[in-house]
Amino acid sequence: MSKAEISLKTVSTPAVIVDLDIARRNISRFQDYADAHGLKARPHIKTHKIPAIAEMQLAAGAVGITCQKVSEAEAMVAGSSAIRDVLITYNILGAEKLEHLTALARKVRLGVVADNETVIAGLSSAFVAEPAPLRVLVECNTGADRCGVATPEEAAALARRIAAAPGLVFGGLMTYPPAKGAAAVQAFMTRAKALIEADGIDVPVITSGGTPSMMDAADAPVATEYRPGTYVYNDRSLVTRGACGWDDCALTVLATVVSVPSAHRAIIDAGSKTLTSDLLGLTGYGHVLGRDDIAIDQLSEEHGRLVSEGPINLKVGDRLHVVPNHACVVTNMVDAVTILEKGEITGSWPVVARGRIV
Amino acid sequence: MSKAEISLKTVSTPAVIVDLDIARRNISRFQDYADAHGLKARPHIKTHKIPAIAEMQLAAGAVGITCQKVSEAEAMVAGSSAIRDVLITYNILGAEKLEHLTALARKVRLGVVADNETVIAGLSSAFVAEPAPLRVLVECNTGADRCGVATPEEAAALARRIAAAPGLVFGGLMTYPPAKGAAAVQAFMTRAKALIEADGIDVPVITSGGTPSMMDAADAPVATEYRPGTYVYNDRSLVTRGACGWDDCALTVLATVVSVPSAHRAIIDAGSKTLTSDLLGLTGYGHVLGRDDIAIDQLSEEHGRLVSEGPINLKVGDRLHVVPNHACVVTNMVDAVTILEKGEITGSWPVVARGRIV
Repeated sequence: MSKAEISLKTVSTPAVIVDLDIARRNISRFQDYADAHGLKARPHIKTHKIPAIAEMQLAAGAVGITCQKVSEAEAMVAGSSAIRDVLITYNILGAEKLEHLTALARKVRLGVVADNETVIAGLSSAFVAEPAPLRVLVECNTGADRCGVATPEEAAALARRIAAAPGLVFGGLMTYPPAKGAAAVQAFMTRAKALIEADGIDVPVITSGGTPSMMDAADAPVATEYRPGTYVYNDRSLVTRGACGWDDCALTVLATVVSVPSAHRAIIDAGSKTLTSDLLGLTGYGHVLGRDDIAIDQLSEEHGRLVSEGPINLKVGDRLHVVPNHACVVTNMVDAVTILEKGEITGSWPVVARGRIV
Repeated sequence: MSKAEISLKTVSTPAVIVDLDIARRNISRFQDYADAHGLKARPHIKTHKIPAIAEMQLAAGAVGITCQKVSEAEAMVAGSSAIRDVLITYNILGAEKLEHLTALARKVRLGVVADNETVIAGLSSAFVAEPAPLRVLVECNTGADRCGVATPEEAAALARRIAAAPGLVFGGLMTYPPAKGAAAVQAFMTRAKALIEADGIDVPVITSGGTPSMMDAADAPVATEYRPGTYVYNDRSLVTRGACGWDDCALTVLATVVSVPSAHRAIIDAGSKTLTSDLLGLTGYGHVLGRDDIAIDQLSEEHGRLVSEGPINLKVGDRLHVVPNHACVVTNMVDAVTILEKGEITGSWPVVARGRIV
């Protein structure tokens, strides 16, 4: 079958579909907000993992991209000469990763984060002999209780440590706050900034992130930069939180009904190997567009079980669009996504940074 | 770093490690049971997705392999000339998939399943002009409430339909039962077999599956064949169900502690992109070997959060082996697994059937 003949009716399922028109609109929406509030946008590419979509974000006005792992950053930089500024929001440890990091730093403007002295010591010894110092931001815990120093005082202590470390330069403060965390970010960062500046150290960047609260980012005016990820595609989690509507979901999983074993149950060919088991606090594993009466109550690896209280009214061979709970993890399951423009399939784009976990 | 220098202390993390000695022992254990009870073993390759491990299963005595999707079967067959007999336990629909199926049927002894007339009609029209008929088994629901016909009478009706369809031959009955489902399998299959034989149609194969109950497979003596999958690696789910011990877990995720933000919390570099969010009814996302006091209570894509009631006693840079809840979905996250033999890393094996969802 030639490319031109592939349509939503014939493409092999399950297929991860990205509507580029919706993605463009989502990118503009946040960029407009950031511009209006004097915030720099640095989108996290974990959601799409595709250099061409990072280029769309940069063209819209983003100052650079965010990655989570070194290998992810390498794949993105290799995939686009437009990607010249990368922040890796991760504690990087180990000889092999540090070797890759120094190579990457020679190619692009690079920043990383650290929340402890072991990581800072490793970065320093890797960069001491490099031509340019590495920018290191201190990761701060503003309530998500994942990584990050617990207090502004600890942040200031690590800032001093970075500023004094050979091969490194202090790059600012970074946090991944919980939803509705703007007030906590403002309080923590204002205090940390004052402490660090009192030491005579400049705080060039204060960067926060998270799509659920991105339209409240300006409620933490101390921040200079914001790192939304999921906003480019959106998903069921964000619709449920009221952050967007179904029409704003650029990513769907196209699935085929393969079995209708009872009047209230149907099975689709998308299971946890496509939709993933991520719940993000929701019940069920996705939303069938146009069928609010259906729940996806169970997944096995290659089967999704659809149930309804009333008649399910589906037949074998029917095709359905499912909005997954969490878009970012879905793109990690496939080697390529199917691109839709003006309702037509226009291409298949490799997810080049898929599976880049080291 | 040359291959010879890579050890568990230096390999980049997170890494999915497969201890081949344990896998070999697991394969033998079930094969011995099957041999003792006159059952044929047809392992499901969804757990490992690696031709060389399928070869180990075949060398131990398996009659063939089971796959879930056509593209998965293609990858396995392309990867090993020893794979000559494949059962795809899935309703296959759509012109493109059927084209791939006919090509595959010319290369190996192939069987598929069907639980409805639409699928049978599609298979028949694809195989009517092929040199050899396709074996089609009827999928039966013995309590898992996923796919499968609901009654022995419906199974007999579809068996007649297959036997009469041009290009097809009736291959027998297939089920994926719930755990402890041997009695239900025995009852359903005995009745269905009698009905089908009363129509003058032979029932050459009755195939059941599932690792949790595999050592009770002989409690359904009507079955001729069994399809365990997870048994080759085992996982936390199976240990918790009492099916095996931690020492029987061939697959672990090696992770590095990247942050210890409090006395009771540590963060590892393996998140849902490695361990996955599969819970399988458990609490938490994996078991840290040797640390029964630790729970993995939260995952984000690249972070796993470890918590303990007492002091967590970990430092940044420590390496831990995590037994995931569900081994099958973990191998689907990585392009290659690290092979361990006699405690040493001896290779990196591509997971060739990873992501083969169509």
